[in-house]
Amino acid sequence: MKFLSDNTAPATPEIMASLAQANTAATGSYGDDDWSKRLDTAFSDWFGAPVRAWAVATGTAANALSLACLSPPWGAVFCSEEAHVLRDECGACELQSAGARLVPVPTEAGRIDAAQLARLVADHPRAVHSVQPAAITLTQATECGTVYSPDQVAALGDIARAQRLHLHMDGARFANAVASLHCHPADITWRAGVDVLSFGATKNGAMGAEAVVFFNADLAAQFELRRKRAAHLFSKMRYLSAQLISCLEGDWFMDNAARANQLAQRIGVAAGSALRWPVQANMAFLRLDAGHQQQLRDLGFEFYPWGTEAESSIRLVVSWNQPESDVETLCKALSAWS
Amino acid sequence: MKFLSDNTAPATPEIMASLAQANTAATGSYGDDDWSKRLDTAFSDWFGAPVRAWAVATGTAANALSLACLSPPWGAVFCSEEAHVLRDECGACELQSAGARLVPVPTEAGRIDAAQLARLVADHPRAVHSVQPAAITLTQATECGTVYSPDQVAALGDIARAQRLHLHMDGARFANAVASLHCHPADITWRAGVDVLSFGATKNGAMGAEAVVFFNADLAAQFELRRKRAAHLFSKMRYLSAQLISCLEGDWFMDNAARANQLAQRIGVAAGSALRWPVQANMAFLRLDAGHQQQLRDLGFEFYPWGTEAESSIRLVVSWNQPESDVETLCKALSAWS
Amino acid sequence: MKFLSDNTAPATPEIMASLAQANTAATGSYGDDDWSKRLDTAFSDWFGAPVRAWAVATGTAANALSLACLSPPWGAVFCSEEAHVLRDECGACELQSAGARLVPVPTEAGRIDAAQLARLVADHPRAVHSVQPAAITLTQATECGTVYSPDQVAALGDIARAQRLHLHMDGARFANAVASLHCHPADITWRAGVDVLSFGATKNGAMGAEAVVFFNADLAAQFELRRKRAAHLFSKMRYLSAQLISCLEGDWFMDNAARANQLAQRIGVAAGSALRWPVQANMAFLRLDAGHQQQLRDLGFEFYPWGTEAESSIRLVVSWNQPESDVETLCKALSAWS
Amino acid sequence: MKFLSDNTAPATPEIMASLAQANTAATGSYGDDDWSKRLDTAFSDWFGAPVRAWAVATGTAANALSLACLSPPWGAVFCSEEAHVLRDECGACELQSAGARLVPVPTEAGRIDAAQLARLVADHPRAVHSVQPAAITLTQATECGTVYSPDQVAALGDIARAQRLHLHMDGARFANAVASLHCHPADITWRAGVDVLSFGATKNGAMGAEAVVFFNADLAAQFELRRKRAAHLFSKMRYLSAQLISCLEGDWFMDNAARANQLAQRIGVAAGSALRWPVQANMAFLRLDAGHQQQLRDLGFEFYPWGTEAESSIRLVVSWNQPESDVETLCKALSAWS
Repeated sequence: MKFLSDNTAPATPEIMASLAQANTAATGSYGDDDWSKRLDTAFSDWFGAPVRAWAVATGTAANALSLACLSPPWGAVFCSEEAHVLRDECGACELQSAGARLVPVPTEAGRIDAAQLARLVADHPRAVHSVQPAAITLTQATECGTVYSPDQVAALGDIARAQRLHLHMDGARFANAVASLHCHPADITWRAGVDVLSFGATKNGAMGAEAVVFFNADLAAQFELRRKRAAHLFSKMRYLSAQLISCLEGDWFMDNAARANQLAQRIGVAAGSALRWPVQANMAFLRLDAGHQQQLRDLGFEFYPWGTEAESSIRLVVSWNQPESDVETLCKALSAWS
Repeated sequence: MKFLSDNTAPATPEIMASLAQANTAATGSYGDDDWSKRLDTAFSDWFGAPVRAWAVATGTAANALSLACLSPPWGAVFCSEEAHVLRDECGACELQSAGARLVPVPTEAGRIDAAQLARLVADHPRAVHSVQPAAITLTQATECGTVYSPDQVAALGDIARAQRLHLHMDGARFANAVASLHCHPADITWRAGVDVLSFGATKNGAMGAEAVVFFNADLAAQFELRRKRAAHLFSKMRYLSAQLISCLEGDWFMDNAARANQLAQRIGVAAGSALRWPVQANMAFLRLDAGHQQQLRDLGFEFYPWGTEAESSIRLVVSWNQPESDVETLCKALSAWS
Repeated sequence: MKFLSDNTAPATPEIMASLAQANTAATGSYGDDDWSKRLDTAFSDWFGAPVRAWAVATGTAANALSLACLSPPWGAVFCSEEAHVLRDECGACELQSAGARLVPVPTEAGRIDAAQLARLVADHPRAVHSVQPAAITLTQATECGTVYSPDQVAALGDIARAQRLHLHMDGARFANAVASLHCHPADITWRAGVDVLSFGATKNGAMGAEAVVFFNADLAAQFELRRKRAAHLFSKMRYLSAQLISCLEGDWFMDNAARANQLAQRIGVAAGSALRWPVQANMAFLRLDAGHQQQLRDLGFEFYPWGTEAESSIRLVVSWNQPESDVETLCKALSAWS
Repeated sequence: MKFLSDNTAPATPEIMASLAQANTAATGSYGDDDWSKRLDTAFSDWFGAPVRAWAVATGTAANALSLACLSPPWGAVFCSEEAHVLRDECGACELQSAGARLVPVPTEAGRIDAAQLARLVADHPRAVHSVQPAAITLTQATECGTVYSPDQVAALGDIARAQRLHLHMDGARFANAVASLHCHPADITWRAGVDVLSFGATKNGAMGAEAVVFFNADLAAQFELRRKRAAHLFSKMRYLSAQLISCLEGDWFMDNAARANQLAQRIGVAAGSALRWPVQANMAFLRLDAGHQQQLRDLGFEFYPWGTEAESSIRLVVSWNQPESDVETLCKALSAWS
């Protein structure tokens, strides 16, 4: 019973069907195909606003290429202390931006503290001796399984606008956030001041496809050259784009996210006071001592410890195809302890 | 009738089957899966020597990450004037290597002229004022549809060894080269002094998978970190690795290459004196004036002009699934003119 | 009465004499001159150990080029929260290292907390997903006017050795530290595990000259190419090297540092409880409310506020040629308040 | 008798006086001093147009920082095959620009062939697969001791404008070019379409000072941050700026250039048919077999071989303080052979 990561799951039947469908004939390479050419329209429809959208294959590519469009090499990019871009992408942002610096901001349950961010940015020196504030990046849903409400995103958007910074959202689990908030995707993106979104599909059932969505088209001018130079323009681009089209045009994508969220919430309820943060997406974080962790492992559960307090904290991630019985068995075990 | 590029073709049935097979269950992410873990062994078997091999999704990634392992930021990488790394990968090599310089070498039919290379390298200043000779990269089969014989590769290998340079091979069409030469893959790689190979699968029928194969393991130490930082480590790595395993473990991969080569040779024969370079892989380059180019287009053929003498020269690429009838129709048209 | 920075002072008479002496005849360029060729010997003598030493013109160049020799592009460089490399060198380290990340460590009075550093390094993930611990840099004397004792440096050296990191020292005010500690320069460098030192001369009276001193010669292999590529190899290198030789071969350099330290200590005594950190070099940091700051300005004193608590804290720096009367007048004013 | 390089000469008395004058009192650091603040005005007056000007210490810094302001990381910078930026600055341009590619253009006597440049630029692909044409750089006077006439510069300026490229001039020997052409500095810079100039002073008698002069102020926005990040902002900036002010405000600077040109011309005349290119600045290039080279060395002359035909070609550079007798003795020897 694997709760290691939503990356361990296979691709959904709908994704496999989309690949088969894209595989029937010769077509233009490097994005000159029907699927790739539909991305702008498909994402514009989905977000209810005119956007530019491009496919890439990894979330790290989406994040690093986005941020490189938002920050000069001497820029400062403010991020959560828990941010994937900071902790789990090696130096990808530094590489693509030619040196931009990630500046960690104090974080509560994975969410950037807006008040502290405002102070940090305001206090940041602007003289030539310092890296220059350039962008803010937030993760939605966060690395801690929480979400920012539309108002919370908008608060960061206000700081960005006031300080003339760009606002990026790492949406590796964007569908989970939308499902959790029961909001329109627009409410937590362009309406709240987000300039660029890394739209995640892989964790929610794609084989390997993410999109970079520019709500602010002025910032997109360099994207295609940056993607090519980074070796993320595929010759057979159709196979990435077809996955994304499938996510946007069927119901399965949001349904999967909602289902995973609900299963995770059941784990949260069962965990009781062991729960570290409210379950608002498809992950639950539990305080659990080594003995209980071992007991779970003995019962056949697989999961990762979390953070540097690893011995007493774990992360449980629900995948799109997680058997309900896995969750039931887990809840039973947890309930017995809470 | 498309002769634009072998990138326009779909994936082979065997590749689609390999993806389906890899899609049945949860497995470890980021390369912790059965397919990825078999790559070293599978490639070692195929090459008859112990190698380290890693999957990436694009040929540009394979080339740029390879060269970054072979050259410091202030290194010079000698390449053919026609090289894909020079002309068609934007600044990918410069990005991944943090500034290495590509130095074009006079080229005959796509092949680096070994004598001129030897002289260029010998004359290259080594003082601190210059970029420092670091590596040679050759393309096999070349961008002009020719191949290097084992001896010709070994001649470059000798220069590399004599001048303490590393030798890289861009094998985007490596299978076509092996099929053309009727040699063992070892004969044109490690036996001839090649340190690192970009092993191409996509052009020969994969959906999107290439391998970086290190024959010289000492040079591989940084590869995994470089790949991660470049955002080319996929969370669901199995889907890349499964494609590569399929290429190595079935006959289809070499059969497809041989078939495409043969069809291209028929075009070469039909072209007669219009043929620019001998057809040794799956491409034919023809001198053809604008009027005849238009006639071909009117007959329904699609192809690209070639080089800056575009008005009088064209490239014809045969894909793995090219209908034989396309080639027959083409040959008939060409024969009428030659 | 300027207490703004030791950078505001002119060059010493000895420095001007050294420049005049170096200016008499034609000589080799790019370091092929008598002064530059003596640097290794002069620094080896001064430190009592065989070293390699090169001149550069700015402290930022010394630091960034040093760290680039100690960290790969995906490396983590641990530094104090107050470090000049972090706060005052724009993205110089990131540029020269092609992306290494500076990781701030909790700091007490400018000194890295060794216990916290040890924990941070030990907890730092080593998997491919993270930047990789590569080096530690400390500033001696610190940006807060304190110094590390030989034991304190050695404690960081022990962490470095245990964790296989390199240890760099930013010695922009190295002479002040040596004078303050009444130690041999070796005691706080190679004997304590320091691999590379940025040896500062400019703040202590040079016109513009710093040295990069490698105690670990293995790490120096790339330095000359890195310096050239960074445009920090001067055609008339003799004028930098002559300054450094003057610093090492006369008494004036250490005498100036000692004198500035002593004057700063008098300010510290006069400040009484307003003193923020012990005065161990040529700087004093005072808690001072806006009213008293204005009173000092009205009396003709120039100085900078310090940190983000700017309204209540100031930095006073004593230059090598600071008139004693400036300090006396200042002490009188401060004493009246303490 | 040294004809090795104008870099071997000491600084002029006027430069030494300017340094002494700048050394009398404390002043603001990092360019907040009277000399640095006068640079814009002094250069604007000299060029007869409003410019922005900043001091750096090396020509390589001037060139690399300039080009980094003119080209994105994926840009192509067209340059002469003989260009210092290509051959003698290691990878400085690549470093500062984060990867821009130098594209050598066929060259006649050091001058870019305008017709060939126009063709190269026009033929350069603009699709995402290629580096993107961004800038042209020419050297004035050239590395071969020739100069571009105002019309020849303007021809390159026309190409730049027509192709929307920026135009940079490496003026390491700019004074020699102006003296040779008896023109106004404006005639070969902003009037001819030059956007940015690396203004050289060091080779013509400064200790170490060059200026980056922006005729197109829009391009200057990033310069100060780039200079700081590159570690080329000096804390005691006044000593660089004072040198430049001395060059612009006295007659000595242009007088020295004119004198060196005239002495070089005498060498050219004496060389007769051995002269490789017309002497239009302070350098003469001679075809000379090994035997005659040795004879010159035996007579006490020092010089460098030139190019890869080193055994039969030499470069003779006249410095600002070259004794006339050196030149007379040399001419006598050369005349005997011609």
